[in-house]
Amino acid sequence: MRLSKYFLPTLKDDPKEAEIISHRFMLRAGMIRQESAGIYSWLPLGLRVLRKIENIVREEQNRTGAVELLMPTIQSADIWRKSGRYDDYGKEMLRITDRHDREMLYGPTNEEMITDIFKAGTQSYKDLPINLYHIQWKFRDEVRPRFGIMRGREFLMKDAYSFDLNQEDAQHSYNKMFVAYLRTYARMGLKAIPMRADTGPIGGENSHEFLILADTGESEVFFDKDLYDMDWTNFEIDYDNKGDVADVVKDFTAKYAATEEMHNEDDFKSSVEEGKRLSGRGIEVGHIFLFGTKYSEPLGAVVQDPDGKQVAVHSGSYGVGVSRLLGGIIESSHDENGIIWPKEVAPFDIGLLNLKTGDEATDAACQEMYKGLQDSGFDVLYDDKDDRAGAKFSRMDLIGLPWQVIIGPRGVKNGQAEIKNRKTGEREDVAFDKVAAYIAEKNAS
Amino acid sequence: MRLSKYFLPTLKDDPKEAEIISHRFMLRAGMIRQESAGIYSWLPLGLRVLRKIENIVREEQNRTGAVELLMPTIQSADIWRKSGRYDDYGKEMLRITDRHDREMLYGPTNEEMITDIFKAGTQSYKDLPINLYHIQWKFRDEVRPRFGIMRGREFLMKDAYSFDLNQEDAQHSYNKMFVAYLRTYARMGLKAIPMRADTGPIGGENSHEFLILADTGESEVFFDKDLYDMDWTNFEIDYDNKGDVADVVKDFTAKYAATEEMHNEDDFKSSVEEGKRLSGRGIEVGHIFLFGTKYSEPLGAVVQDPDGKQVAVHSGSYGVGVSRLLGGIIESSHDENGIIWPKEVAPFDIGLLNLKTGDEATDAACQEMYKGLQDSGFDVLYDDKDDRAGAKFSRMDLIGLPWQVIIGPRGVKNGQAEIKNRKTGEREDVAFDKVAAYIAEKNAS
Repeated sequence: MRLSKYFLPTLKDDPKEAEIISHRFMLRAGMIRQESAGIYSWLPLGLRVLRKIENIVREEQNRTGAVELLMPTIQSADIWRKSGRYDDYGKEMLRITDRHDREMLYGPTNEEMITDIFKAGTQSYKDLPINLYHIQWKFRDEVRPRFGIMRGREFLMKDAYSFDLNQEDAQHSYNKMFVAYLRTYARMGLKAIPMRADTGPIGGENSHEFLILADTGESEVFFDKDLYDMDWTNFEIDYDNKGDVADVVKDFTAKYAATEEMHNEDDFKSSVEEGKRLSGRGIEVGHIFLFGTKYSEPLGAVVQDPDGKQVAVHSGSYGVGVSRLLGGIIESSHDENGIIWPKEVAPFDIGLLNLKTGDEATDAACQEMYKGLQDSGFDVLYDDKDDRAGAKFSRMDLIGLPWQVIIGPRGVKNGQAEIKNRKTGEREDVAFDKVAAYIAEKNAS
Repeated sequence: MRLSKYFLPTLKDDPKEAEIISHRFMLRAGMIRQESAGIYSWLPLGLRVLRKIENIVREEQNRTGAVELLMPTIQSADIWRKSGRYDDYGKEMLRITDRHDREMLYGPTNEEMITDIFKAGTQSYKDLPINLYHIQWKFRDEVRPRFGIMRGREFLMKDAYSFDLNQEDAQHSYNKMFVAYLRTYARMGLKAIPMRADTGPIGGENSHEFLILADTGESEVFFDKDLYDMDWTNFEIDYDNKGDVADVVKDFTAKYAATEEMHNEDDFKSSVEEGKRLSGRGIEVGHIFLFGTKYSEPLGAVVQDPDGKQVAVHSGSYGVGVSRLLGGIIESSHDENGIIWPKEVAPFDIGLLNLKTGDEATDAACQEMYKGLQDSGFDVLYDDKDDRAGAKFSRMDLIGLPWQVIIGPRGVKNGQAEIKNRKTGEREDVAFDKVAAYIAEKNAS
């Protein structure tokens, strides 16, 4: 993409309203724009990252055998009355009356609707297990939206719902999601620590939150250093093997980890040796629940079991805050100059900087580099604008692409580009025809 | 995908509420489910088609240089008051009051918001032209929603918005979208006839609707047979070449074509010879508008022109009914047994039918075929369920995948699968190891 044909309204100064780093950098990097309190447009650069995160979430859901569908944003109040949650949700639920005075709402979650869908499409235990998920915009009418998309009102969430014949199978479905979450976050360069959680208004018997560490986290967290030091990147697993899946869950829940709501200082002290007791702030980026028959019973979601009896299914629900993750990644990966994207979610792989737009030789070298990098399979943002070099450097650092390829008149003379690694700051001069191979090799290592 | 692990709640009988073919088949094929009047869940099979259509639309928008972003579903009433359209929209606009009693609405379209976004991010004529689009759920509170997703309330739309320095450039932006639409529909196997249209509440000076022919269309249309007989598949074009782009628009607007609102019987008779005067019913699947400074003036969207003067930009807006297209394709491509998907939008490329699930040799042959076809790059839905052959045949015809690969004990003996072309009904016995090549060759021809 040529920057001159793109839409990247970056800001030079810090916006006053932004209290935290991710909000500030997202506004400055032209990724989002506030339309109303807690409601944002995703500008082109922001949308690219959002889609990359969404796709990682989707791939890891599919890998477990979960099946994607899409429920609408607007729901009827009726199904929420049946489950008894219409009142529980209080003012966070955006309630709507349509032109025929029917009570509707903008879905904050989908347990009721998915249970209805499951029920209409499933009669027998032979159709189980089934896990249905969607990635859809939700609305929660926060009393005080803040921190940009970290605590917005309209937000993108992945929510999955599992249905099993009995408690044991349901536990396996829960465990699969647990592992899928570890894989999902690891692919984005994150360690999201699973912590036993309160089940809140969703209800149920078993629940974990996944939190990433960041100074601006909303919750204080306490955990064992040994847990944090484990290998978080190696979850090649056969999801059909109940034992293997359960073992990963066991490994990642054996050590102490708790949010302040669930923290018990005595347990912490007795189970973790002093030098390994860590605490910090955490951002919740996922939450999973096993709630048994809490929704299937009132909503009549039953199947025929092997003995011909009608039994209520055992369910769980599994949420990932897709839009929120974007903020979480920035909170945990940035420096004073801007964002540092992990390569898996970067909006472009490479930023190409032309230091003398209008100079014939430099333009020609950049154009050839642009084409060559694209032909090598890279997504390139080519800064071909007629700005000062300093402005180009700051802008490129701000938006945080993993690699910068810098070409000016001097480089053209030597047949070399300067390559900068955004994360480490390392710079190297590389011959024009070796640039693609250089970056590919560094990315692979 | 194995059918036993999928979620495909097909119906044997015609649902009473479905008045038109696409609605009936989408419900029967387990593609959608009504949640409230005019509001649908997209079940897994339906969602796959929706995403394919969405991607074709996206690719053709990107090809013109349009840039994707994503605006939220919920908007503030304020910007609609500024443009004066808050009242124009009447009861079709879903109005919402949030917990702080602020007036909000579920966006039916985005002219106001995008103009604000453009304005905040663009200062100079040098940044033009720019065309920004998004593919987002919209809501129009239809008084009587019907025909399934063809006339629903919550629907998926692509809307693009162009901004140019002057009328001439704006006309080129309009022409590019015109050609992109022809390309988009052609890729889905559709001829969508452009017809001069009334501009309605969007306003403006120039407007075309794109309509596909179907008996259940909402509008009567009149057109010249010569127009319909043109080559609709050949639009390789350089979008930067104003003359070439204008020529395509000229070719496709030179012949008579009008909806009943714009139809003039005398003009029809004088410009089209008798044997070539055709009429029929049409479904609108796209609508484009060139409205000049109608929104930029009241909303203050100005840029600095080459002389240093502040001038209001010239704009257009361009809509494709993404979810509606799905119904339109079914209306124009089906038989009495079900849907016939054009291969570009089919939810899977191939349906693999195991005629004797549980028979060891047949299971093994099917499993090998399933793997082999996937390795050849095909998306396969493998019907491995323990149902009667007759039920499998009807289900596969109903969901309309382009190819069926049928394997039973007899075929296993001969080392042959029966291949059925869903569209033509042709059947052929093909050796197991030739199946992938056979289908690839037929698809390419």
